[in-house]
Amino acid sequence: MRVAILAHEQFPDRAKTALGVLRYADYDVAAVLDRETAGRRVTEFVADVQDAPIVSSMDDVDDPVDALLIGIAPIGGGFEEHWRPDVRTALERSCDVISGLHYFLAEDEEFATLADEHGCELRDVREPPADLTVADGVADEVDADVILTVGTDCSVGKMTTTMELSRDANEHGYDAAVVPTGQTGIMIEGWGNPIDRVISDFTAGAVEEMILEVGDDHDYLFVEGQGSIVHPAYSAVTCGILHGAMADKLVLCHEAGRETVHGYESFSLPPIRRYVDLYEGLAEPVRPARIFAGALNTRGLEDDAAAREAVDAYAEALGAPATDAVRFDTDGVLDALL
Amino acid sequence: MRVAILAHEQFPDRAKTALGVLRYADYDVAAVLDRETAGRRVTEFVADVQDAPIVSSMDDVDDPVDALLIGIAPIGGGFEEHWRPDVRTALERSCDVISGLHYFLAEDEEFATLADEHGCELRDVREPPADLTVADGVADEVDADVILTVGTDCSVGKMTTTMELSRDANEHGYDAAVVPTGQTGIMIEGWGNPIDRVISDFTAGAVEEMILEVGDDHDYLFVEGQGSIVHPAYSAVTCGILHGAMADKLVLCHEAGRETVHGYESFSLPPIRRYVDLYEGLAEPVRPARIFAGALNTRGLEDDAAAREAVDAYAEALGAPATDAVRFDTDGVLDALL
Repeated sequence: MRVAILAHEQFPDRAKTALGVLRYADYDVAAVLDRETAGRRVTEFVADVQDAPIVSSMDDVDDPVDALLIGIAPIGGGFEEHWRPDVRTALERSCDVISGLHYFLAEDEEFATLADEHGCELRDVREPPADLTVADGVADEVDADVILTVGTDCSVGKMTTTMELSRDANEHGYDAAVVPTGQTGIMIEGWGNPIDRVISDFTAGAVEEMILEVGDDHDYLFVEGQGSIVHPAYSAVTCGILHGAMADKLVLCHEAGRETVHGYESFSLPPIRRYVDLYEGLAEPVRPARIFAGALNTRGLEDDAAAREAVDAYAEALGAPATDAVRFDTDGVLDALL
Repeated sequence: MRVAILAHEQFPDRAKTALGVLRYADYDVAAVLDRETAGRRVTEFVADVQDAPIVSSMDDVDDPVDALLIGIAPIGGGFEEHWRPDVRTALERSCDVISGLHYFLAEDEEFATLADEHGCELRDVREPPADLTVADGVADEVDADVILTVGTDCSVGKMTTTMELSRDANEHGYDAAVVPTGQTGIMIEGWGNPIDRVISDFTAGAVEEMILEVGDDHDYLFVEGQGSIVHPAYSAVTCGILHGAMADKLVLCHEAGRETVHGYESFSLPPIRRYVDLYEGLAEPVRPARIFAGALNTRGLEDDAAAREAVDAYAEALGAPATDAVRFDTDGVLDALL
């Protein structure tokens, strides 16, 4: 599939979804749309990602192109009206439009009419499917080993770690797939249930449904975790994923230096060992799972030696191999997991 | 408020909501509608509840009546067409209609029109308010002590225990209120967010919102818990309530003899001490709370002496006072909690 990615005025620093797609997705990226940096190329700004030209509008994207992805999200998840001409052009060219916004494009009258006329699809990945239901407690029946990333907090690198581990496992010849649970993961993978938007009763069920769908087709599933089990706002989602996934193995993700809950700074993070006890203790009655490895996000440490030292200290605290899956290799961690 | 309760062909054994309302709500119950037992009275079937005549239709309910409550729920939560004449009559008499069905009465064209014409309200308590959002982690700032019922499983008596403890506390002269989280609790109390139907990201926030709403008006809040922290399907809801409520004290509810998860019999319940460790361990990083008391549902034990023995054994396992709040008094438990 050949796609264009809309990231107007926010590429690269505020375009997390666009970067995730450029870094991890199998799509062939025809162009990034950003009228501010138009004329330059992706790799002038970011290393280690697929290169593509940056253009100012959908009119400048060469054929063939199958879909336009909305690669940015303003706070609140609304639709910016200055994106409308590009979405319109995409639909008129029979491209699907894929969006993770809270504003559902399929409910926009103009877009719905155009999609209908041109035989293409508006895919709002943040809208859960209507047929989700409660879990049956059977995710452990699939053939694949299920590996779940869990975290000490939000935004510590669970999605990135999931993608890196799956990619590296495949590069080593294993048959691994990602089970995405959030909007960026879903846009990268092209499928998935947005767990944070499902009805709370269906949280575990929405994860189970995905594992049953792909769990017999692969040897390993890397399930993207969300939040943290002691997060004042998001622990419900974390707990539902833990029990819905019925994982065999857990990877505990953390950010070096993080001491309080992001955005909830009056809450201190407990010690790493406490997380191990809580995740393993909570998993056990439903499906025993141990923390087999750790992933430490060291983006805050400039010096590689300091980052290596932080990873080693984290591995020692965990009693398991650890890495920064972006900065260092994942060999030791994959050895423990696969 | 004077209400009629619809329970056609299911009173009393399959009318859990009707019974809860008769037992705990402050409403003056004008009549129960059940065409099968019409002509008899409520207390011919059930002790310890408000008495009321049983009649065959809304036409037989004397004025004044302010609301019709749907007191039963078929599997799936649909609306039975043979209830329609009673709902119609209620609306024509300007009564509100209160329902916990999945089928929303407000979306029924005939009912919506009638409610509009007669200036009354269709209250679908299972539809969450549209303005819910994520928790701020501030439920501990209210004046009231927050007491949360937690469970070893679904259907062990969390709602009933919550109601009994709050009622008994008030009878002892304390100012206590219930924070309902499920449909029956909401219908009894006349307000509340249906936590199992909110978006998973808002689970904790929907509890916090209720506690902030009433927490400065009372000395004690009894929060109705849901599910169990190790339930294969519903643990997300349980975890969100635990962290959203930021309780000071927990009451662990269990049913005597229950050994496996109800409806998920391949899952064994862990030992009671494990629940204590899990609930307290999970609460601690957000808001430390200990299990101060236990509630054991002994409905399966005919003999009072055997029930008393089971309660004593449960208290010993917990290391805290326990009771069956329906069968025995709650004095020892309230002493520990208030």
